[in-house]
Amino acid sequence: MIHSFLMIGQSNMAGRGFLNDVPPIYNERIKMLRNGLFQFMEEPINYDRSIAGVGLAASFAAAWCKKNKQNEIGLIPCAEGGSSLDDWSVDDALFANAIAQTKLAQRISTLDGIIWHQGEAESHSGKYRDYQDKFFIIIERLRQVLNVPEIPLIIGGLGDYLGDGIMGGYFNEYTQVNEELKRFAHSHNNCYYVTAEGLTCNPDGIHLNAVSQRIFGLRYYEAYDQKCHILAPVKNENKAIEIDSDRPHTKTEKAQMINVLFFGGKISFKEYQQKMSQIGD
Amino acid sequence: MIHSFLMIGQSNMAGRGFLNDVPPIYNERIKMLRNGLFQFMEEPINYDRSIAGVGLAASFAAAWCKKNKQNEIGLIPCAEGGSSLDDWSVDDALFANAIAQTKLAQRISTLDGIIWHQGEAESHSGKYRDYQDKFFIIIERLRQVLNVPEIPLIIGGLGDYLGDGIMGGYFNEYTQVNEELKRFAHSHNNCYYVTAEGLTCNPDGIHLNAVSQRIFGLRYYEAYDQKCHILAPVKNENKAIEIDSDRPHTKTEKAQMINVLFFGGKISFKEYQQKMSQIGD
Repeated sequence: MIHSFLMIGQSNMAGRGFLNDVPPIYNERIKMLRNGLFQFMEEPINYDRSIAGVGLAASFAAAWCKKNKQNEIGLIPCAEGGSSLDDWSVDDALFANAIAQTKLAQRISTLDGIIWHQGEAESHSGKYRDYQDKFFIIIERLRQVLNVPEIPLIIGGLGDYLGDGIMGGYFNEYTQVNEELKRFAHSHNNCYYVTAEGLTCNPDGIHLNAVSQRIFGLRYYEAYDQKCHILAPVKNENKAIEIDSDRPHTKTEKAQMINVLFFGGKISFKEYQQKMSQIGD
Repeated sequence: MIHSFLMIGQSNMAGRGFLNDVPPIYNERIKMLRNGLFQFMEEPINYDRSIAGVGLAASFAAAWCKKNKQNEIGLIPCAEGGSSLDDWSVDDALFANAIAQTKLAQRISTLDGIIWHQGEAESHSGKYRDYQDKFFIIIERLRQVLNVPEIPLIIGGLGDYLGDGIMGGYFNEYTQVNEELKRFAHSHNNCYYVTAEGLTCNPDGIHLNAVSQRIFGLRYYEAYDQKCHILAPVKNENKAIEIDSDRPHTKTEKAQMINVLFFGGKISFKEYQQKMSQIGD
């Protein structure tokens, strides 16, 4: 049985880390939803835009696999760049899409958690004041419609770089949003807050970079696994980019990597044959 | 109002043409569905796999824009690599996903057509014999559930390269599949067949290359626009890769291209500012 997790929120949940900045994760026990089916996971998982890249879900899933040696994990990507809480209103497009995708996933998996990262869109003009009320309505309805009333919900804070970035002025209330997220997590059952303390960003000053996304994924998993808030960096998180590098790849994983090279036009048929023949050795 | 088209079938509808082989199409009147919303179209449109690339939908849409000067076109990507007709069975995952996505699109657009390319999976072991029966059930139910009983359905043939490619043996009944597709189109209302005559493939011998996908998209549009079968190459199709190159880009399109470069980490903030300031000139 596949254990699935719904990914919702805005761009930092979708992922904008640069793919070339971290080793790729190829793990045949990590799947992602495509057209209602679970496929071999490759980043970008959440292809909301052409600039989609590394998000926190891949290392979250790799950490899950380290703890769960037998089963598979399935990621359900429904995050949308630039989306506000209002954009996530019950029964509007993003909400309805997340429900539709998750229901397809529930046919072939058990939904084990919801991971959320959002709030940049509420980091100005006093919008943080309504955060908890709006968020509560969305989450309660989501749990109800998906029939998972007590499912764990992991919510992460916004990066401290927002205060300084080139768009710093726009996000000048991000600390207030973080306080609201923290309060929400502390006052609702089965909800855990994850700090973004120390995480860094792309040159755009908005999006978590690939290395920080790998770290953030570990923190999200720690919150999920330990059922507790993560209010400070976690042990060994500086090795996050190596999360899946300390085991040999399986034959299936090796074949997947070679297939991507060949069908993507990066190697010739002769090289493809050579590489494939070496897998069996 | 956005005029939308549902993209279904297997990998050659999803698109595996190499992105670098053709000029990109940036046209603000072409949208693609993401999370239930229409966004600025950029290839790959149908991200079913990490090797997704250029498909026929982009030049189909560009041709549509040449004829329709005012409105917008929205593409609904639901094609799945490697899928057989059985995989598309009514109410199974692919079918259910296509319904869910199209219903979201119908909230904000008028569904004007269905474009289908599929059949490699039925090109062996006598499977072509059941093609028409199976396909009819899928299409009829799709039209019924989406409440578009007479919507045009454009179906394309399989490439003649299949007989020779490195997987040639596997697809040894592709001509029979093409005959079934043609017969289906000739015997059903509002269904038009498009030949793949003369189209060529990637080195894998399976997937249409980017240039051929651009041509195929023109042929599909010709079938849609003229409401007729396209049984031979169409006029000027050799200029297909320039389909959207003969008009100046709008400010919105220029800004989109610059944003992708900057947020994708390809140019510095200084270059970003420079390029953005030049748009206004």
